[in-house]
Amino acid sequence: MADDGITPVGDFARLDTARASRTGDPEVVFGQGKTPQQVVDILGTLHAAHPDRAVLATRLAEASLDAVVAAHPEAVVDTVARAATLGPLPPPVGRVAVVSAGTADAPVAAEAALTVRVHGAGVVPVSDVGVSGLHRVLAVRDELAAADCLVVVAGMEGALPSVVGGLVGVPLVAVPTSIGYGASFGGVAALLAMLNSCAPGVTVVNIDNGFGAGVFAARVARNARPR
Amino acid sequence: MADDGITPVGDFARLDTARASRTGDPEVVFGQGKTPQQVVDILGTLHAAHPDRAVLATRLAEASLDAVVAAHPEAVVDTVARAATLGPLPPPVGRVAVVSAGTADAPVAAEAALTVRVHGAGVVPVSDVGVSGLHRVLAVRDELAAADCLVVVAGMEGALPSVVGGLVGVPLVAVPTSIGYGASFGGVAALLAMLNSCAPGVTVVNIDNGFGAGVFAARVARNARPR
Amino acid sequence: MADDGITPVGDFARLDTARASRTGDPEVVFGQGKTPQQVVDILGTLHAAHPDRAVLATRLAEASLDAVVAAHPEAVVDTVARAATLGPLPPPVGRVAVVSAGTADAPVAAEAALTVRVHGAGVVPVSDVGVSGLHRVLAVRDELAAADCLVVVAGMEGALPSVVGGLVGVPLVAVPTSIGYGASFGGVAALLAMLNSCAPGVTVVNIDNGFGAGVFAARVARNARPR
Amino acid sequence: MADDGITPVGDFARLDTARASRTGDPEVVFGQGKTPQQVVDILGTLHAAHPDRAVLATRLAEASLDAVVAAHPEAVVDTVARAATLGPLPPPVGRVAVVSAGTADAPVAAEAALTVRVHGAGVVPVSDVGVSGLHRVLAVRDELAAADCLVVVAGMEGALPSVVGGLVGVPLVAVPTSIGYGASFGGVAALLAMLNSCAPGVTVVNIDNGFGAGVFAARVARNARPR
Amino acid sequence: MADDGITPVGDFARLDTARASRTGDPEVVFGQGKTPQQVVDILGTLHAAHPDRAVLATRLAEASLDAVVAAHPEAVVDTVARAATLGPLPPPVGRVAVVSAGTADAPVAAEAALTVRVHGAGVVPVSDVGVSGLHRVLAVRDELAAADCLVVVAGMEGALPSVVGGLVGVPLVAVPTSIGYGASFGGVAALLAMLNSCAPGVTVVNIDNGFGAGVFAARVARNARPR
Amino acid sequence: MADDGITPVGDFARLDTARASRTGDPEVVFGQGKTPQQVVDILGTLHAAHPDRAVLATRLAEASLDAVVAAHPEAVVDTVARAATLGPLPPPVGRVAVVSAGTADAPVAAEAALTVRVHGAGVVPVSDVGVSGLHRVLAVRDELAAADCLVVVAGMEGALPSVVGGLVGVPLVAVPTSIGYGASFGGVAALLAMLNSCAPGVTVVNIDNGFGAGVFAARVARNARPR
Amino acid sequence: MADDGITPVGDFARLDTARASRTGDPEVVFGQGKTPQQVVDILGTLHAAHPDRAVLATRLAEASLDAVVAAHPEAVVDTVARAATLGPLPPPVGRVAVVSAGTADAPVAAEAALTVRVHGAGVVPVSDVGVSGLHRVLAVRDELAAADCLVVVAGMEGALPSVVGGLVGVPLVAVPTSIGYGASFGGVAALLAMLNSCAPGVTVVNIDNGFGAGVFAARVARNARPR
Amino acid sequence: MADDGITPVGDFARLDTARASRTGDPEVVFGQGKTPQQVVDILGTLHAAHPDRAVLATRLAEASLDAVVAAHPEAVVDTVARAATLGPLPPPVGRVAVVSAGTADAPVAAEAALTVRVHGAGVVPVSDVGVSGLHRVLAVRDELAAADCLVVVAGMEGALPSVVGGLVGVPLVAVPTSIGYGASFGGVAALLAMLNSCAPGVTVVNIDNGFGAGVFAARVARNARPR
Repeated sequence: MADDGITPVGDFARLDTARASRTGDPEVVFGQGKTPQQVVDILGTLHAAHPDRAVLATRLAEASLDAVVAAHPEAVVDTVARAATLGPLPPPVGRVAVVSAGTADAPVAAEAALTVRVHGAGVVPVSDVGVSGLHRVLAVRDELAAADCLVVVAGMEGALPSVVGGLVGVPLVAVPTSIGYGASFGGVAALLAMLNSCAPGVTVVNIDNGFGAGVFAARVARNARPR
Repeated sequence: MADDGITPVGDFARLDTARASRTGDPEVVFGQGKTPQQVVDILGTLHAAHPDRAVLATRLAEASLDAVVAAHPEAVVDTVARAATLGPLPPPVGRVAVVSAGTADAPVAAEAALTVRVHGAGVVPVSDVGVSGLHRVLAVRDELAAADCLVVVAGMEGALPSVVGGLVGVPLVAVPTSIGYGASFGGVAALLAMLNSCAPGVTVVNIDNGFGAGVFAARVARNARPR
Repeated sequence: MADDGITPVGDFARLDTARASRTGDPEVVFGQGKTPQQVVDILGTLHAAHPDRAVLATRLAEASLDAVVAAHPEAVVDTVARAATLGPLPPPVGRVAVVSAGTADAPVAAEAALTVRVHGAGVVPVSDVGVSGLHRVLAVRDELAAADCLVVVAGMEGALPSVVGGLVGVPLVAVPTSIGYGASFGGVAALLAMLNSCAPGVTVVNIDNGFGAGVFAARVARNARPR
Repeated sequence: MADDGITPVGDFARLDTARASRTGDPEVVFGQGKTPQQVVDILGTLHAAHPDRAVLATRLAEASLDAVVAAHPEAVVDTVARAATLGPLPPPVGRVAVVSAGTADAPVAAEAALTVRVHGAGVVPVSDVGVSGLHRVLAVRDELAAADCLVVVAGMEGALPSVVGGLVGVPLVAVPTSIGYGASFGGVAALLAMLNSCAPGVTVVNIDNGFGAGVFAARVARNARPR
Repeated sequence: MADDGITPVGDFARLDTARASRTGDPEVVFGQGKTPQQVVDILGTLHAAHPDRAVLATRLAEASLDAVVAAHPEAVVDTVARAATLGPLPPPVGRVAVVSAGTADAPVAAEAALTVRVHGAGVVPVSDVGVSGLHRVLAVRDELAAADCLVVVAGMEGALPSVVGGLVGVPLVAVPTSIGYGASFGGVAALLAMLNSCAPGVTVVNIDNGFGAGVFAARVARNARPR
Repeated sequence: MADDGITPVGDFARLDTARASRTGDPEVVFGQGKTPQQVVDILGTLHAAHPDRAVLATRLAEASLDAVVAAHPEAVVDTVARAATLGPLPPPVGRVAVVSAGTADAPVAAEAALTVRVHGAGVVPVSDVGVSGLHRVLAVRDELAAADCLVVVAGMEGALPSVVGGLVGVPLVAVPTSIGYGASFGGVAALLAMLNSCAPGVTVVNIDNGFGAGVFAARVARNARPR
Repeated sequence: MADDGITPVGDFARLDTARASRTGDPEVVFGQGKTPQQVVDILGTLHAAHPDRAVLATRLAEASLDAVVAAHPEAVVDTVARAATLGPLPPPVGRVAVVSAGTADAPVAAEAALTVRVHGAGVVPVSDVGVSGLHRVLAVRDELAAADCLVVVAGMEGALPSVVGGLVGVPLVAVPTSIGYGASFGGVAALLAMLNSCAPGVTVVNIDNGFGAGVFAARVARNARPR
Repeated sequence: MADDGITPVGDFARLDTARASRTGDPEVVFGQGKTPQQVVDILGTLHAAHPDRAVLATRLAEASLDAVVAAHPEAVVDTVARAATLGPLPPPVGRVAVVSAGTADAPVAAEAALTVRVHGAGVVPVSDVGVSGLHRVLAVRDELAAADCLVVVAGMEGALPSVVGGLVGVPLVAVPTSIGYGASFGGVAALLAMLNSCAPGVTVVNIDNGFGAGVFAARVARNARPR
């Protein structure tokens, strides 16, 4: 590893392995558009540079998940999140509730949850909380109020963040998903709904970006005043 | 009035005064883009053709409202709905609940409510029912369930129809309003959210189209089985 | 089945089997994005909870249709609608006319028609009624006027609801389909046309959402005053 | 006038006064964005170059219409079309039917009709022919079939060209107008509907472009085989 | 064939075989979305109803082209246009020039040309006339001026109709194609350019709609005054 | 004030004065679309219900700002933020840095900053930090790293959050502004850029929504572990 | 002026007066959204810092142009470009041809031309060169080929850059303007056409951004090999 | 080869082999949408017409790359750029720096770099220069300032051109790439960001259009004053 924290991997990448010290976050491989071998190599290089802290690989296709398991048997794979970690997870500091409605949103919620954990905060998953079934939302109100940050995942009309945001005053990151059809336009309907939420204090990330929401929420939670 | 039900008004319009008998609905003047004098003249012609049933004028600018009052002192003006009626209202048959969230959506809700009445059904207004304050929605659940049709008016993220549609099995017409800013795109965010509602059985009309929702809901309600 | 009406299915879903009593509608499986096995399992669980009333599965891929037939030989499959039912259909109450233009719109019309039946209303299918052949539309005017609710399915320019809506005063739900190419933008042209219909009282659902239109129309029809 | 047909007007324009001989069409001033004085000057220059044939000015604001009348008392002004002509109209060759639905579309239809006349063809205006009142369309079928070219003007859902195009085999130019609100997006809904017409042989011009449709239709009509 | 001109084909279509007499055009099968067998059957039925005049099938996939050849050996197949005809072509009346720029636009131009011929007009193909090579456009000016109608096919920036329309006064139908990438948005860039052409008298059809342009141009040409 | 926390104001609003206790935030009046008198009345009612804590009015037009000053001389007006407060500000807990680039973004940044203060956190304003002048960004790196949450305000290409987000690991809320012209589409370009930021952990609010960002950031900061 | 080149102006701006030395360009005030007094003050400050080189103010409203003249009588105002300069223009190095079609595009072309001059290159204006009149384009071919860089300004369908780019191999910057109506969408049609130009080597700037094109072209021209 | 420089290739293309002399650029085959055999044939024809100067084929699918190698063993293939050249490269004149951020943008950057070389200028590749890691950008400032023209390639939020454009005054062509997901809309987010860059003098090409940027930059560089 060079002094400036830049480590070459084969001839296709120069890794900024000093980034962790700059931001306090772990190293991450974004697997989309990379070959299984590239994922394996970068993951290995990052792990070697940070043996004491889990590195994360996200957006892994089936073949990449298999290649990671074959090359790094000690890796932990999350098939719902389509992600893998290599190295020990940090102890959880603070608490993030990851809320989702239907089974179709599960991969994005799982990516957010795993990202939170790898970034050093604890996770409380709250699933099957649909906006068209208010009793389920109301039943988990206390769980939501006890979190340091909320990640709320929803596709289709993207109304869940507004409902949740009206119940509690916890910082809330909304994640629109691409679940839907026709005039959902691949998640645009949910994205617009979340940006226009009448509940104050709702922020939004890109469509299906569970990772980004997880990074943000973990930063908030691990810096939160202990309760 | 000609045999084919076409009545000329000045040289700018030929009214289809036989339309009421074809569809069972009253005559209506869409005031937008018409001069105050045109509104007054058409309203007078329609009233003369149908003296025993209220005719309706919608989307009236301040000047048109004033001109209608001056020319037809017996007209009833609804300043919130920016609309006026001339002639006796029909007796209400069936019941339509018109639900809205904030004061900003009031003009559209009022247009829907007046339209329902003029088209022969009864109205139950339910206002200040925001999606970020669930207790208000839950408090009116029985009122909603007792209606023959619901008109649910909302701007911004347009989530109210999903929440209401998850509570009761009454036919629900959603009306997106142009209330909002930035990425609401003049009501497009609310329109898309409503088209993608996860609550089954939600139908949608054009942005700010309280009139269209009212016509539809009145047709459903006045044909409903009496309770 | 738990007291709150929530029934777990494997580890991928918690079914809200009390929903029927809340809204008066049957249970439904949205098949898109689910594996054949998931469809089979959820359908079986819902049928077991409601043995006396048909449950519906929509948006079934070929493999899911086959799996349903294999696992539930008593299921009734509608290959045009790409849907299946399990359990006895309720007696039809009221009448919904499902109007469509071309053969390409048939799957959406069939989904709407089956949904209407499963939701307890009767169906009158009216097909091959294109807007560029007015004589066909005029020939079925009485059939349309006799319905309690209309579902009008059209792709391309989506003009059929305007034409039909000008003929009769029956509540009309328009369903844009994704049939078309180029500037139809996957059904957006038809959707916009329907939202802007000059015929009063036209409401609209999402592109290809025959299911949503069917739920709505059935609710209207089964609550309609008997003729 | 220079040999190459380029004539300077003040210091703000160089007119291509040889264009008429190239294409067989008259000279035209597009008034939008020009000062009243510029309109007056260009109109005068063009008229001087072509004293034996009417020149046309379109899209004239109130002040430009007034200035034209003041400067050129022999000009003929069409206040509905917001246009003016200077010089004798050519004898009409062939026949263009200009069809429109509502009073709101009248300015665009009038611009098309005047353009057709100035470009040398005859005009048959057919107004108040709405798609939600089919009997009016059917009543003029023979008039439409007898034309050499149709210009069909419609706003909102833009369905009229499909209905007319299904009745007769005459070349049909559709003109979407900006009449509508909400999801009409300033005429985009009508434009898309016309581009997706299921009636074969429908062509389309820009929103509110009565002028372009008129030029095209006149070219077709004046070259048509006499009947 | 029934008296009203409606002929059933299997159980999937009711053909309006009287349409030809209504509009003067031949019968056409739109092959997209139909199975090879459906194309074969409809084509056979239409040919049987009109043995003395070619019927046309467009948008045929490879398998449909093969099936047509196998079932109707006398059919004439145009592999560039992805279309086929069955029955004798009518004698050409009038002349349509079909202008295109690059080889990528050839299928749309070929569809337009074949459609023109089947609809009874003659065709002059003018290809490889790109806007970035003006000398090629200028070289064919006389050929263009001699036509009764022009069909101008272009993708990417869609500038060719403006250039051609500035050279000659012949009615011009522009066909945007989906050729391009990135910000061409599948032909939208070309479509918008054509709708905004500064050359007067340009009309436009849907993206890739060579068929529609051909129908329109043939109607214009076969009704044109003989030269 | 009723037991359920709902307080009527005139006949145009029912205020949810119990909201503060539910979420820990102050009461706020969104001034856009409200008359000056409505703003004054609601502000007065809210202040009476919460005399010991500042209430906030945002999006105030000139006339509303004047009316607030006249009616509530003790109100504090922020003319840059177009906002006013009534009642004592809470002591600041935690620290939010509000970063902006140009003078044109100042109103949105000021709204965010005032919102943060009223919601109980401290503010560090960092202005004139443009992405095309990196030295200014680098000069404030330590100030940024010391904050508990960042609000980064930018119009045009919206690149500032990516640059700032690459420098420090603090939770970052990006606010796109409507500053720009042409293809900025009223802030859409900046909004999309922020949603696609390559810096992990960036969340986004609606265009010009300084208020929403402020609420969120204050919640994060006042709950942050003291340094 | 501070050592770091940052000079405060009143309390509303901190000017980066060292920028010129960094990039070799002059100082510029973007007048849109600034008060006349702010324009006057910033212009004065910049002129004081760079007395030997013209500073430029663009996008000046009428009132700002008047205020500049009153405060700085030695300023040179370009009313077509809505811009002003203060201080001596640099000697022209290299040559930029600024090509435009109609009078409506003149303000943008003038802004580009003035910007080129202020940024140190020479300008050859070439106007009235429309794509629908090819002879005008061909007539200036040699002038275009002799330039070091071209700026081509066009609204509506934006075809001029493709035509010019096919004639000569000079670097070409295309500027779409907002001239047009309906489906021009404020310049989007021209912008898309230019981005999709089939002429290689065409680059594009924002709609109406004559300034940006001028800066770029001047940089190219003043660095060009002398001829 | 004909006198007018038009050379037919099989029956599918007429090559304008005189284009090089008109613009000074080499001949190029755009491989997208062409069969491997067509690519091979056109490349061979162009090479035969210009044996002393490399011809370029871009956008080659795997099969086309293989076919080129098999048919023209002396061709040089660039697998990252998916392009090939045939014939000797011209000596490099001037210097273009091609800057890119991540590995995902490499194919577009490679296409730009190869295009620059084939068009006669020299290339300095600068990769792994992300906007969220400013130190990497600052480290290459001198390399950037020494170039005659910059090509800056970026996907996602497209911020790199703004950062680079603020550092140096070299002409800068920005290339948005389609790298991203969700609200990147296939490169639209990056495209809009670049069009709205606050750094003056940034021009933009179509999404993924490394070729166009390369042509432009080479023209600038080879005409630049030698340093």
